[in-house]
Amino acid sequence: MSSALRLGIAGLGTVGAGVVKIVQRRAALLAARTGREIAISAVSARTRQKDRGVRLSAYAWEDDPVALARRDDVDVLVELMGGSDGPAKAAVEAAIAAGKDVVTANKAMMALHGQALAEEAEAKGHVIRFEAAVAGGIPVVKALTEGLAGNEVVRVMGVMNGTCNYILTRMEGAGLTYEEVFAEAQALGYLEADPTLDVGGIDAGHKLALLAAIAFGTRLNFGAMRIEGIERITIEDIRHAADMGFRVKLLGVAQMTGRGLESRMSPCLVPETSPLGQLENAMNMVVLEGDAAGQIVLRGAGAGEGPTASAVMSDILDIARGTRVSTFGQPARSLAPVEGATASAPAPYYLRMALVDKPGALARIAAVLGDAGISIDRMRQYGHEDVAAPVLIVTHRTTRTALDEAISKMGGTGVLASDPVAIRIEEV
Amino acid sequence: MSSALRLGIAGLGTVGAGVVKIVQRRAALLAARTGREIAISAVSARTRQKDRGVRLSAYAWEDDPVALARRDDVDVLVELMGGSDGPAKAAVEAAIAAGKDVVTANKAMMALHGQALAEEAEAKGHVIRFEAAVAGGIPVVKALTEGLAGNEVVRVMGVMNGTCNYILTRMEGAGLTYEEVFAEAQALGYLEADPTLDVGGIDAGHKLALLAAIAFGTRLNFGAMRIEGIERITIEDIRHAADMGFRVKLLGVAQMTGRGLESRMSPCLVPETSPLGQLENAMNMVVLEGDAAGQIVLRGAGAGEGPTASAVMSDILDIARGTRVSTFGQPARSLAPVEGATASAPAPYYLRMALVDKPGALARIAAVLGDAGISIDRMRQYGHEDVAAPVLIVTHRTTRTALDEAISKMGGTGVLASDPVAIRIEEV
Repeated sequence: MSSALRLGIAGLGTVGAGVVKIVQRRAALLAARTGREIAISAVSARTRQKDRGVRLSAYAWEDDPVALARRDDVDVLVELMGGSDGPAKAAVEAAIAAGKDVVTANKAMMALHGQALAEEAEAKGHVIRFEAAVAGGIPVVKALTEGLAGNEVVRVMGVMNGTCNYILTRMEGAGLTYEEVFAEAQALGYLEADPTLDVGGIDAGHKLALLAAIAFGTRLNFGAMRIEGIERITIEDIRHAADMGFRVKLLGVAQMTGRGLESRMSPCLVPETSPLGQLENAMNMVVLEGDAAGQIVLRGAGAGEGPTASAVMSDILDIARGTRVSTFGQPARSLAPVEGATASAPAPYYLRMALVDKPGALARIAAVLGDAGISIDRMRQYGHEDVAAPVLIVTHRTTRTALDEAISKMGGTGVLASDPVAIRIEEV
Repeated sequence: MSSALRLGIAGLGTVGAGVVKIVQRRAALLAARTGREIAISAVSARTRQKDRGVRLSAYAWEDDPVALARRDDVDVLVELMGGSDGPAKAAVEAAIAAGKDVVTANKAMMALHGQALAEEAEAKGHVIRFEAAVAGGIPVVKALTEGLAGNEVVRVMGVMNGTCNYILTRMEGAGLTYEEVFAEAQALGYLEADPTLDVGGIDAGHKLALLAAIAFGTRLNFGAMRIEGIERITIEDIRHAADMGFRVKLLGVAQMTGRGLESRMSPCLVPETSPLGQLENAMNMVVLEGDAAGQIVLRGAGAGEGPTASAVMSDILDIARGTRVSTFGQPARSLAPVEGATASAPAPYYLRMALVDKPGALARIAAVLGDAGISIDRMRQYGHEDVAAPVLIVTHRTTRTALDEAISKMGGTGVLASDPVAIRIEEV
């Protein structure tokens, strides 16, 4: 058996404790699978005195994660602290400078600084792996980087924030408003300290940015992503979408177009019979489309101690086995600079509007759409006791630009009782 | 850039031609991702004169795949001929003897001889990889061997024969009999030359045996698997199952029990709302359950040129990148001998029977089940114009042994109009 692989674990929250448990409880299994002992040399966290449900006395303690990263008896820094900058980044930089490999679950750090960090690590012949940063226990980074390595990737899609999917499916299931379910999720501890990271789509956007770099061989460019959260989705949108056979999802989509890399994280409608449409509660799902493999769908828990620790272990065991794949599937320096596409690819759209109750109102809206070259696939007008008539329209494929222009012209007709809501229908 | 990785491709059917196309068309992409040129040195097939839609003139030709495997300018034998024995096995053995790595899509050869082949290859420090042998384009061997390497695997399940799933979903969708859809599938070229391999569950059984060896670290033991095909499934079973909220699937299940490794490939009922229940047409789905990761579901095309070639390329590119994982996730010699469990784990069952139309018939059946300690979850009796009344029973969890004994005792009651059909309900 080869020499032990020695870990330094920085961060002993839920995931860190989960990794320690697996290393302790599954020692024989891990050694059988890698041919090496997986050992923990040292650990680091903010507070030493705290019951984490695991024995830590056999490991050296470091108050400072940077000191942990530099220890001679650490081969791999396992960074599980979180935070895009600060101590997490400092520790990772120290580990790279000291010529060590890095395993991290830190999506914010990787999305914002992964390009520079990977370049530094690769210049030294070392690797940074981040399976746990994207979609928890689903081995999607591996599936994309290695499993589909023979494919030109066509599109990557994913529901990658379990909290948002919980909120949307709970609204539909229980008939509750966004505000009610948000409060419920907050009480249950499902939301990050800054809930905007979840419901604003930023956390899921970080994950999509990482997958897009691998999929398209492009430099990380989180800033070029169009991000829209679920805060404006109403229970009426969800109900009306269901009437038309759709479900609302916070969906990330990255695809290469003639105009550049289009990447967006936004509420979309998907057919209720599709795998994405059927995804319930806090589950995650990633859809990978390759020119050869076709559509591969992966589903699993996107968060939690076990799933995230499982992903961290996968990276550690790869390193133990001698697998050394570039962080983004090819050397970070070779990733192509790419323009973010300003306009998104054409798609059908769902339009919800309220029309004032006077003759010819609907005809005027239809005329505006027709003038803009947007044809109507399906239309539904609901009975109403109000002065305004709720109207739903599903368009045929059009561009967001054409649609926004048409919506702006609708304003001039005087028949709108409120601002129309437009949601893209993603063709999955 | 490192030296080229030189392939010898044996077998130029759909998949072989697909691999050649990817190597030719995606040369730059593959080199960017692996840091090496992926080159084809030589090819071999039964007939040299045949238009395969790819240029082969730049490659050496070998009539004999064994000679191909031994060529000095071949680093990796890519075996895509098929057949458990004969030329495929001879070529693989020749490649191993000559100290080369092997990539194969051959599930029958691997299920029957993979243990010995992997031991031989590993003794020489070489690898055999077989991603394409299981579930086509879905990177499931990688997900299980590497992605879940930190998990004790709890259960592996899968719908891994697209033809069977096509037949079952087509029967349900079109209301056709098994015989009608079988004939249709044969006309469409969906069935193997020996259709028993498909509809008898053998092909899917080969795949499950391979996954079970990885999942549980056990020696390959295809002979210990209980295999039952879909030939006896009637349109009535499918309709009645649907009435109770289930779908019929040819489902492989492998799980470690207190009595040994239970592995079976057989028609099962699964809830129609589960991912497995919603799998349509020729799609494949594999469900991996780990103690840490929880349930991971993977879905994709299980066959066809592109998906299978994508999986072959994944193995080739792993080798090009220097990844060297044992064939079954740990050295083949270290796999544990395992007894096949003779009895399967308890489960609910679906029972379909026809009772003669006389008073007390149903009470006698219920009494037999009660005496056997089998309790009834749901029961449904259908109106009938016949002399026999169709009755469906969903039991609570019981063992197959207890159920078989009860069914045998039912025979003595004189109220059965025909043999009951029992189908396991898999709790997914």
